[in-house]
Amino acid sequence: MIGIFDSGIGGLTVARAIMDRLPGYDIVYFGDTAHTPYGNKSVHTVINYAVADTKFLIDHGATIIVVACNTASSVAARVLSEKFKEPVLEVITPAVDAAITSTKKGAIGVIGTRATISSGIYERKIMEKRPGTRVYQEPCPLLVPLVEEGWLKRPETNMIVKKYLLPLKTRQIDTLILGCTHYPVLKRIIAKKAGKNVAVVDSSIEMAKHVKQAVDSSADIAKRLTKTGSIEFYVSDMTLRFEKTARMIIGKSIRLTEVRG
Amino acid sequence: MIGIFDSGIGGLTVARAIMDRLPGYDIVYFGDTAHTPYGNKSVHTVINYAVADTKFLIDHGATIIVVACNTASSVAARVLSEKFKEPVLEVITPAVDAAITSTKKGAIGVIGTRATISSGIYERKIMEKRPGTRVYQEPCPLLVPLVEEGWLKRPETNMIVKKYLLPLKTRQIDTLILGCTHYPVLKRIIAKKAGKNVAVVDSSIEMAKHVKQAVDSSADIAKRLTKTGSIEFYVSDMTLRFEKTARMIIGKSIRLTEVRG
Repeated sequence: MIGIFDSGIGGLTVARAIMDRLPGYDIVYFGDTAHTPYGNKSVHTVINYAVADTKFLIDHGATIIVVACNTASSVAARVLSEKFKEPVLEVITPAVDAAITSTKKGAIGVIGTRATISSGIYERKIMEKRPGTRVYQEPCPLLVPLVEEGWLKRPETNMIVKKYLLPLKTRQIDTLILGCTHYPVLKRIIAKKAGKNVAVVDSSIEMAKHVKQAVDSSADIAKRLTKTGSIEFYVSDMTLRFEKTARMIIGKSIRLTEVRG
Repeated sequence: MIGIFDSGIGGLTVARAIMDRLPGYDIVYFGDTAHTPYGNKSVHTVINYAVADTKFLIDHGATIIVVACNTASSVAARVLSEKFKEPVLEVITPAVDAAITSTKKGAIGVIGTRATISSGIYERKIMEKRPGTRVYQEPCPLLVPLVEEGWLKRPETNMIVKKYLLPLKTRQIDTLILGCTHYPVLKRIIAKKAGKNVAVVDSSIEMAKHVKQAVDSSADIAKRLTKTGSIEFYVSDMTLRFEKTARMIIGKSIRLTEVRG
């Protein structure tokens, strides 16, 4: 099974993109809603949570691990790769590759949680692959709570997005990476405020393309997966709000099963 | 020692109010920043966290327990009182008593996290003590992240506070309970948007008065406490942001010690 984990519900944007591109494949999703959000916590705490999430997925039949959380990908992907024998796919590299392909002026903006931006991982990976690129980063810690509240079209959300993007606009970026799996839900507002000359890279979609590519090109990965149409969603804490947000992201009602830690 | 716990840093408003009113008393504070926030999580998860927090405080010398978190007070105070032999003081009742004393028209507004408001505990306690009171409640889930970001004077914060208070204003409340320990940090904005005819009840200050009263009037509680001037702050996860917010609330630099779960 394709195992996908996130700090909460936001990673469902990745699950949805994978379901669209790899229909029929068996998926197990784990959202660590009891510890959400990861983006404002420390590196070692996020690593501990990510290890526990991965163990849960493997115990529930996952044979490849998709880290659908930018924060966990930023600070824990290497530890997971070393600790587990299952292939671990992180969400950063596919977005970096897409941004490098997209940029013409070599000026890329990155928005994400405080933990993701502090880790500097996007800048580092971009510089490795395309030295000389100008990378401008901006932490946007209020966007996750706004998405979780479903404030998708409110004027306050518009104002806050505009405020966060202003320093990137003045740097005249031509490409913007949505470095958090919650942000695709706000893609329309973000694209509008970024301006029509800026290409928006959606890390959830790039991740799904990357998983499809891995399945298509690697016999090892392909043979690990099954196609019985089974899709399971687990969360470590359950509230009505999580159900509502999950429905909003997946586009239909889904059954979340709560598992206690 | 006076043991104080909160889901994170917000409960420091209670610690500070207690330090002001009971100078010299020994205090141990625990902020569960690894699991913050509690306000959007389920009842059973908050109870599990509150039990663990209380155990930590008792292991570190606490002889009375101050639940400085409205969410934990709402859903877990009774469990804690049953489970532990130490006196447990919760933050709801003192605020309810102050609001009942304050209201003239019998129209009280309550703002808090989603979990606190859903629990209905403020309304229930007000109705028990003053039947016939009209109680209007409004969950304000974005205020905690705004405080944590230090967006205390930004126009977006103004707009969001105004939006949350509007339904309470139309009900013509004359008293407003700040039912979350983060909100005192926004007291000036909240008071302004609520209007000059509305008395604002600060649950952190009422809690501190209540603790002082308990110390002054109960020999059992007084003899449990020591006065060596020792004040210890522990958190379950440590980031620069938490340190900054802690300094903002306490009004001076404090040393937070991280303890791992």
